[in-house]
Amino acid sequence: MQGSTLDTRAENSPRPTSSAVALEASHDPALRSWVESARDHAEFPIQNLPFGVFSPDGGQARGGVAIGDEILDLAALAGSGLCADIEETVTAAAAPTLNGFIGLGTAARKQLRARLSALLAEGSPAQAQLKPILHPARNCLLGLPARIGDYTDFYAGIQHALNIGSLLRPDNPLLPNYKHIPIGYNGRASSVRPSGEPFLRPNGQRKRPDEAEPSFGPCRNLDYELELGIWIGPGNAQGSPVPIDEADDRIAGFCLLNDWSARDIQAWEYQPLGPFLSKGFATTISPWIVTPEALAPFRKAQAPRPEGDPAALPYLNPAEADVPHALDVTLEVFIETASMRAGGLAPHRLSLGSTRDLYWTPAQFVAHHSSNGCNLEAGDLFGSGTISGRDPGSFGSLMEITRGGREAITLPNGESRTYLVDGDAIVMRASARREGFASIGFGACRAEVLPARG
Amino acid sequence: MQGSTLDTRAENSPRPTSSAVALEASHDPALRSWVESARDHAEFPIQNLPFGVFSPDGGQARGGVAIGDEILDLAALAGSGLCADIEETVTAAAAPTLNGFIGLGTAARKQLRARLSALLAEGSPAQAQLKPILHPARNCLLGLPARIGDYTDFYAGIQHALNIGSLLRPDNPLLPNYKHIPIGYNGRASSVRPSGEPFLRPNGQRKRPDEAEPSFGPCRNLDYELELGIWIGPGNAQGSPVPIDEADDRIAGFCLLNDWSARDIQAWEYQPLGPFLSKGFATTISPWIVTPEALAPFRKAQAPRPEGDPAALPYLNPAEADVPHALDVTLEVFIETASMRAGGLAPHRLSLGSTRDLYWTPAQFVAHHSSNGCNLEAGDLFGSGTISGRDPGSFGSLMEITRGGREAITLPNGESRTYLVDGDAIVMRASARREGFASIGFGACRAEVLPARG
Repeated sequence: MQGSTLDTRAENSPRPTSSAVALEASHDPALRSWVESARDHAEFPIQNLPFGVFSPDGGQARGGVAIGDEILDLAALAGSGLCADIEETVTAAAAPTLNGFIGLGTAARKQLRARLSALLAEGSPAQAQLKPILHPARNCLLGLPARIGDYTDFYAGIQHALNIGSLLRPDNPLLPNYKHIPIGYNGRASSVRPSGEPFLRPNGQRKRPDEAEPSFGPCRNLDYELELGIWIGPGNAQGSPVPIDEADDRIAGFCLLNDWSARDIQAWEYQPLGPFLSKGFATTISPWIVTPEALAPFRKAQAPRPEGDPAALPYLNPAEADVPHALDVTLEVFIETASMRAGGLAPHRLSLGSTRDLYWTPAQFVAHHSSNGCNLEAGDLFGSGTISGRDPGSFGSLMEITRGGREAITLPNGESRTYLVDGDAIVMRASARREGFASIGFGACRAEVLPARG
Repeated sequence: MQGSTLDTRAENSPRPTSSAVALEASHDPALRSWVESARDHAEFPIQNLPFGVFSPDGGQARGGVAIGDEILDLAALAGSGLCADIEETVTAAAAPTLNGFIGLGTAARKQLRARLSALLAEGSPAQAQLKPILHPARNCLLGLPARIGDYTDFYAGIQHALNIGSLLRPDNPLLPNYKHIPIGYNGRASSVRPSGEPFLRPNGQRKRPDEAEPSFGPCRNLDYELELGIWIGPGNAQGSPVPIDEADDRIAGFCLLNDWSARDIQAWEYQPLGPFLSKGFATTISPWIVTPEALAPFRKAQAPRPEGDPAALPYLNPAEADVPHALDVTLEVFIETASMRAGGLAPHRLSLGSTRDLYWTPAQFVAHHSSNGCNLEAGDLFGSGTISGRDPGSFGSLMEITRGGREAITLPNGESRTYLVDGDAIVMRASARREGFASIGFGACRAEVLPARG
């Protein structure tokens, strides 16, 4: 929960955005919390205040807010009388699943955030009352913040699509629809798990080109995929699409998402209907819902499309071109092998990516997904698609880094990898930084690969 | 709810199965109900007793059981004292969503079925007590029987796969993985709706081969797909696959499923990750969960694979080859155009199919889906894939019947169709018949196409 890895990275220099964003008092970098660990915290300063669901040591799951190295217990807050005027909102945010809270929408979320900011700020008269309902995060278990109704995985990392496409179709890496449609597919909701839960290497059918028949057994090419996760707040009725200019208000917040991928199973199963069991064994997300309010200073207008690219169709085009629909968040992937763990070595960074490399914005995902009348619901989760940049240090999966497993990489301790081996853990982190603003983190998205069931 | 269309069909002659099936007293064709409309009912005789969720005129949703033209109110039954010894089960079956009930599994479901059979049989001393808690089905609204956690659509209709494949790839209609893997993909759970709810023709991006650029507008090629739906009962923990020989016990029952398909949207969007918005605008299911117990007389062993087909891998192969994993159910699709409705004409049958044309069994779906460790949960829904036979009268979609929209069909009243027009309703029905047994129906799966949103 500490984000100490992020503290030491100099390369994450702030990249100011050009767009005007309406900032509220809660972003003021001079704002300090009476919670000491929150001051200059790399991930959870008082300017962040992400929502989640936690279980204190031995206790039941309930809503909470991260502040420094602590979690504020919203169930206790709801009973404190300090939020009596916004009781419906704080009660919903205190529940063991936050579907009701995020379904309330932007106004209610902003109201609770403003209250939390005031209560946790230096000089708050509530300090003595709140201190006893702070739990050290290291003693808490973090769960999924909401029941995920449907999980949709997009494919908006254009450099990833080019990298994968050039492995499969060297002459024609990008399919003709890519720049017209935010390509996506339905994922498996039930197997999305919170950071910290290990999973078994999947078994499945796989057939190498040199094998005459498929066989069933442990995945041979297990990979990660670095993605931004997007939580849907207020939904839409079936048959009533969300216009692009209302789409941002349907987004409750963001997380990190690791779309674990069994490449060999995928290659054999995916024609003609797409990925299925190669993805549905496990998906790991970071447990905090980082709000659009916390990320407001890091929004920017989508970069103009490169010369020659088609214009987006009107239903995907915001009325004003400079609306800051896009995000500027830096994402990292680290590998921690069993040997690194045993030797006390720091995890090794495999990828450093940026949400600026997404061809489509979260708002365009919402507008496209509902354009056919499909009803989105509070607690639906989107993945952005794998985020890769132009150079190998920014590729968001091992398939890209090792060129389909053909070129092994060597880790600092001498181990080599094409794909993941049992005992490897993948840790993802995200940070938003900008000159003159407090830095915002997402918390870790971590899981370890356990051996396949025999 | 009456199945009157089925009553008049002579071609559905019983096809005795060769496999021995353990039949219980509740299947005895001599068993008669004191509910008069249930006697010789084409769909809901006392031998059926499907579970569902209904709202009586103006009342709240609750669990119920179809018996003849009536619905027995399980919430009232739970309070009657007639099931005090199985209170947990009847209370779960009385709830407004049946996830808890179907999660209890086979033993609890059989116990409640046996009790209902006894209570509703001629001579039952409970008759006077139960009469007031029967509701005429025509006055009731039927909802989804469970909250659908995840919806998975398979592709097990091999003749359908051949028909579609030969339109797309005349030289190579069936992909190499088809006979090794029960091909499937994740569908959209939120937009699955119960029979009776109309839906708007979807808008979407589409691009004909003769068009230079895609455009956004109403679907031009709206189609139905005839499928068997499968309700999952007790689930499995993540990482713990369901062995093939335990798979049938994870199935709570069956329904009809219409996988509405926007063919033009599908053709443009589906590469490389599969169908998405072309399917996710609406899926219609029949509202009753027809139990494995009701269908026990109509189970049969899977037909041996044709000479030359590969053997299924061991994880998909039941220990005993003659286990009756497969079903013998007849399925029909009718079209009712606005003009037929206005003129009082009977709907016209487009397709007559059979579950015997499925290449994979429901048990194989369960074993395959969980083979990678994916956790299935009570209330998950599977579609079988479109069921087509060898002749055009048995094709389960208009794309197959009209050869991709190239050959229009003429309806008895002179109208013609390639794909569906606004005002068309599609009605699906299913029946299981066998000499010496009462016939079992599924209830209607019906929805009307309304004009697209402007």
